[in-house]
Amino acid sequence: MTENGGGETQKWKFKGNEALTKASGITVRGVLDMLMDNLNPDDNRLLLRLGHGDPSHFPCFYTTPSAEYAVVDALRSRQFNCYSSSVGILPARQAVAEYLSRHLPNKLSPDDVFLTLGCTHAIEVALSVLAHPGANILLPRPGYPYYEAMSSYIGLENRHFNLLPEKGWEVDLDAVEALADENTVAMVIINPGNPCGNVYTYEHLQKVAETAKKLGILVIADEVYEHLTFGNNPFVPMGVFGHTVPVLTLGSISKRWIVPGWRVGWLVTNDTQGILQESGLVESITSFLNISSDPATFIQGALPQIFENTNEEFFSKIKKTLGQGADLCYGEIKGIPCFTCPSKPEGSMFVMVKLNLCLLSDIQNDLDFCKKLAKEENMVILPGSAVGMKNWVRITFAVEPSTLEQGLERIKAFSLSHAK
Amino acid sequence: MTENGGGETQKWKFKGNEALTKASGITVRGVLDMLMDNLNPDDNRLLLRLGHGDPSHFPCFYTTPSAEYAVVDALRSRQFNCYSSSVGILPARQAVAEYLSRHLPNKLSPDDVFLTLGCTHAIEVALSVLAHPGANILLPRPGYPYYEAMSSYIGLENRHFNLLPEKGWEVDLDAVEALADENTVAMVIINPGNPCGNVYTYEHLQKVAETAKKLGILVIADEVYEHLTFGNNPFVPMGVFGHTVPVLTLGSISKRWIVPGWRVGWLVTNDTQGILQESGLVESITSFLNISSDPATFIQGALPQIFENTNEEFFSKIKKTLGQGADLCYGEIKGIPCFTCPSKPEGSMFVMVKLNLCLLSDIQNDLDFCKKLAKEENMVILPGSAVGMKNWVRITFAVEPSTLEQGLERIKAFSLSHAK
Repeated sequence: MTENGGGETQKWKFKGNEALTKASGITVRGVLDMLMDNLNPDDNRLLLRLGHGDPSHFPCFYTTPSAEYAVVDALRSRQFNCYSSSVGILPARQAVAEYLSRHLPNKLSPDDVFLTLGCTHAIEVALSVLAHPGANILLPRPGYPYYEAMSSYIGLENRHFNLLPEKGWEVDLDAVEALADENTVAMVIINPGNPCGNVYTYEHLQKVAETAKKLGILVIADEVYEHLTFGNNPFVPMGVFGHTVPVLTLGSISKRWIVPGWRVGWLVTNDTQGILQESGLVESITSFLNISSDPATFIQGALPQIFENTNEEFFSKIKKTLGQGADLCYGEIKGIPCFTCPSKPEGSMFVMVKLNLCLLSDIQNDLDFCKKLAKEENMVILPGSAVGMKNWVRITFAVEPSTLEQGLERIKAFSLSHAK
Repeated sequence: MTENGGGETQKWKFKGNEALTKASGITVRGVLDMLMDNLNPDDNRLLLRLGHGDPSHFPCFYTTPSAEYAVVDALRSRQFNCYSSSVGILPARQAVAEYLSRHLPNKLSPDDVFLTLGCTHAIEVALSVLAHPGANILLPRPGYPYYEAMSSYIGLENRHFNLLPEKGWEVDLDAVEALADENTVAMVIINPGNPCGNVYTYEHLQKVAETAKKLGILVIADEVYEHLTFGNNPFVPMGVFGHTVPVLTLGSISKRWIVPGWRVGWLVTNDTQGILQESGLVESITSFLNISSDPATFIQGALPQIFENTNEEFFSKIKKTLGQGADLCYGEIKGIPCFTCPSKPEGSMFVMVKLNLCLLSDIQNDLDFCKKLAKEENMVILPGSAVGMKNWVRITFAVEPSTLEQGLERIKAFSLSHAK
């Protein structure tokens, strides 16, 4: 209600949408922004951001110039200023199909590929096509909270199975079986793991596929960190098991090429039996994309050249830098008494660390730890409760080595100053 | 149901989403794709596409090189490979605020500006924040069918008021008043007009604002064709009336810069009284964007330079070319007996033409006209039923002049060969 010039009261009939406020409440972006508000403006030390998965600012993680050239070429050709087709332009879908087929037993067709605005949009598409009244989806705990935010917004019930820290963060498959019922439509795995930095073996993924098949549900395989592995387990795409169970593979160039701001990703059907086609899901994906925005056409146009011209040296360098970060992080964490880390990360950009609150004098929980750390040490890490694990924290090691060293020193100093 | 290896029947629990299929059924994209399927593959003449609003392929509509330089510079700076903030990066929001303020009585702040993936995404944001059970929205007929598709998907009831061809496609404000009830939240105007090519006067927009205020609803002003005017009426932004009624202005660089594939647009609050803030709508916009994808960060990063470096000559040239297309189109249409055009277009890229079916021997309706035209003349125009006006057609004149001439000749030949 507002007063208008004549002193009368004007009544307006529109109002905000509470479902949106609720859905966006717990996202990584939201929690990190809140922590940034806790920084001490008088602290003149460099702000250290070990909370999020975006190393694109650090010179050691700059993308390959060949990817930049590809985008400039596509832009300058003037062939890609036009609208895209709703599923993505054919040469780009063809290029993604070929790129992913390199690691699959069968060849994907461009018709299996749907281009999206990064992996986030691929998640939105996957959840939206699966949503119907009463349906539920099984999500990992810890996990990536965008799944919870989006499914809550569109009315898809989410149920959680645990990842097991003592077993390299494998899926608790007994829990999956116990949670599923007649209304369960899918389960989600994130591999390489966010937030845990784990990489699943072929054998474990096979068990996931067999469990999903037994339950009659599809597997959403979030592989946005594909190929970013530096331990014993190589990356195995879930699509390898597309003959056992239908798999929706979600990915993007955001992480492997360190260009999250380019907003190009994909949703790919790995389904040699054509079950997704038969069930109407493929038609729903096309329909959703028809009323959804597309990635910038000239960035799509650059994809064939990006895949073709990026050399192995770039990938190796990034993996080496990440591996060194993981080593440094794991080593230093051992020297911090209030931290326990179940295993050294072997993939992605993160490690999950358990807080031993009994060793700290005045820290209530993980959120309190991260808030006070932000205030006293001018640095940000992610509270585990943001990813479903209370009294844990997620630290990213995908930063410049000197930043990581300083960050771990500050955490150590902080934990000593708060020790019992 | 599929058979597995052992001959047993496997039951899958997921299925497609019918609401999506329904929502995406009538979009401009969908109808044009259907017409493309009607082309005669043996017709070797050049395919003429006068159906959609994307002239980016034609040399006379190429974007200004300064916009391309701006994007290349932003990309090469390596400062914009990162994730964007959810509402858009500050320099880009600042630039949009300044750009739009040039034509407003008051200065917009960057906090009034939310960056979106083109105008389509801005429509999605606007409708999503307004949707709540029972709410309805008033849409123009003819209009842009994405409004119907998106509101149907999210459960926002749509009601239609007519645009009046005999009054230069002005809004039938009596109809607006008759349609509105306690659950009406907003009305939509598209100016310059799609599909009608009209441009509203200051006086008419003022009446729209006063009507909306009286009804207690906000105005969604779709100004994606802003400044593309070449008749007597200058473009007046609806935001000029932001002191009378809250206005959500939707726009993008897609049309004025002829780069629809770049996917950068905006949703802007014009609301000097702070009513949208008070009602919770601003918070809902932020929440929606927090769970939505962002425009590519480096294209956002280019916006300040794009606005600053584009010279008036580029804009004048585009307007002149469009004006010549409108003249040519209007002149030729007069010579086609089965066509009636109520007024010469003064803005955007389209003209609406009425079919006099009684003069044709074997044409059932507008869709039949367009299908047979596609098949016999290897060209595409949009049936009016796709934009809410049965037995009209929408023709775009934003094409190369020789293409437009050929297209109008083919339409004339077609209508003569089907004359009674």
